[in-house]
Amino acid sequence: MNEADFVRFLQDTFPFSRGKGIGDDTSVVKTGDCCQLVGKDILIENIHFKLEHFSLEELALKSLAVNLSDIAAMGGEPQYFYLGLGLPPEMKKEKWLNFFTGLKKGCRQWNVELAGGDFSSSALMVISITVIGKAQKPVYRNNAQTHDLVGITGVTGESALGLKLLLKGIKRGYFVDKHKQVTPEIQKGQILARYVNAMIDLSDGLLMDLNRVLTASRKGARIFYENLPVTPNMKKICRENGWDEYEIVLGGGEDYVLLFTVSKENLLELEKENPGYYIIGEVTAAPGSLAVEHKGKPIQITRLGYDHLGKK
Amino acid sequence: MNEADFVRFLQDTFPFSRGKGIGDDTSVVKTGDCCQLVGKDILIENIHFKLEHFSLEELALKSLAVNLSDIAAMGGEPQYFYLGLGLPPEMKKEKWLNFFTGLKKGCRQWNVELAGGDFSSSALMVISITVIGKAQKPVYRNNAQTHDLVGITGVTGESALGLKLLLKGIKRGYFVDKHKQVTPEIQKGQILARYVNAMIDLSDGLLMDLNRVLTASRKGARIFYENLPVTPNMKKICRENGWDEYEIVLGGGEDYVLLFTVSKENLLELEKENPGYYIIGEVTAAPGSLAVEHKGKPIQITRLGYDHLGKK
Repeated sequence: MNEADFVRFLQDTFPFSRGKGIGDDTSVVKTGDCCQLVGKDILIENIHFKLEHFSLEELALKSLAVNLSDIAAMGGEPQYFYLGLGLPPEMKKEKWLNFFTGLKKGCRQWNVELAGGDFSSSALMVISITVIGKAQKPVYRNNAQTHDLVGITGVTGESALGLKLLLKGIKRGYFVDKHKQVTPEIQKGQILARYVNAMIDLSDGLLMDLNRVLTASRKGARIFYENLPVTPNMKKICRENGWDEYEIVLGGGEDYVLLFTVSKENLLELEKENPGYYIIGEVTAAPGSLAVEHKGKPIQITRLGYDHLGKK
Repeated sequence: MNEADFVRFLQDTFPFSRGKGIGDDTSVVKTGDCCQLVGKDILIENIHFKLEHFSLEELALKSLAVNLSDIAAMGGEPQYFYLGLGLPPEMKKEKWLNFFTGLKKGCRQWNVELAGGDFSSSALMVISITVIGKAQKPVYRNNAQTHDLVGITGVTGESALGLKLLLKGIKRGYFVDKHKQVTPEIQKGQILARYVNAMIDLSDGLLMDLNRVLTASRKGARIFYENLPVTPNMKKICRENGWDEYEIVLGGGEDYVLLFTVSKENLLELEKENPGYYIIGEVTAAPGSLAVEHKGKPIQITRLGYDHLGKK
């Protein structure tokens, strides 16, 4: 069962009568003249992070940030969140208290509050956050239109490159920091929401997440690799290490920039707000067709990105 | 740091401006003429359950039930929930799909809907549920009054006895079923909410959870063991196995019945609704004093119940 099948199975099995349920970055429930957004991401030791790579403070900030990014992807404003925390019994109090130092910093930085949670021993560290936010007009991933342009709000592949360097034993530097420190694009998401047709945050790789938008919207896309922001330094490190630049830029996860599709007319309006983005391709009418070209030549796509159902 | 200190630390570090945050079964945020309740419980393999004891269907039902029990403890009506699921990569699809069969049964049984979630591989199975509900007048745990009577809505210790039998290799029977099948007291909670001063659900043992009410309310209590509903069969199994009946009845976890404190006047009104309960003691003015007597003789309390911070 691939992810799209699984989502369809869940949507068929669990219809949601109060708004938009399964299948987007958050659920959406109408409340008065606004919409309540609820997102939930779990982070599990050795799958999403290794404790040797992160201080507990860094881990708290990143866990919060990736959850806030889900609200950003809907064009929403995050308000408060709930924390489920599983901690190894041998971890010292002095150490795990730093998790709350990080969480407090995140609360200040992103103007959100901790509203409750649960706490348990666990052989593996588990961080489960549920974040609540609001939006006047949420943006869904299933509304990409043929001839829309595809945009991203930042560079992709830097986090994946940082992880590769971390795994090589390099503990600091620009790319490692990009992997460890996530900035949810909350303000940008709210600006984009006024103009774009579809939006998602890039958590599992550019093509993987773009494909989610296309699958939900029953569209295809052409991506022009030369339009992607790939820095000389990134190319150099890939070359020096014999790493596949395409795979990192197109398939590397955890960028947490936003991907959107926007009509040409609305793009002219969006430009005036100058939020900062790159137009990297266009939406096509052919469902399931995702083509990447580099200066006119097709790039063979072997792996879309990180697939949580890959082994299922 | 004990639990009360930890809760106080969290409350001081994370003030919540939108309602009642950390420190009760759920948070409470006013929405229009009602209150939104949000509860979050995580269940982690080998801490909360062993996969050899539960089918995936049973596990889904129990995970949902214990979360709904938090809404019941506030006197609320559960509405919908979010699921974070971490599954061992080697678990077969045919097996884990049964989790959703169980979840669907739970949705029908308790009239709730699945609204979203997240899914990941995990070396240990992790189930994180966030449940949303509503209440006109939520009941908190910090409002027990001196001279209130202490009541419980069902028998305690049966789940703990069932777990002991399970660990002995006994796979079925009344007590084992009590451990595996949880019924959240949703309707009873809503009736009680109209009369009681404080309420909590019993997840970590009668005395542990009563102590949470007393700590939050700055009160004490006297419990009369002879008023507790202990069945002859339970006494017999304890006797035959050399198990401490007091420890199981007073300290055994996962009963998920409700404990409440109610004024004598309101109890007269509550009786007319006949929800089914046992009056087991009374609230006293002395903060931190928790005494249990059996036919006039004091019972020595060595361990209150299951303490998730016990090893911290």
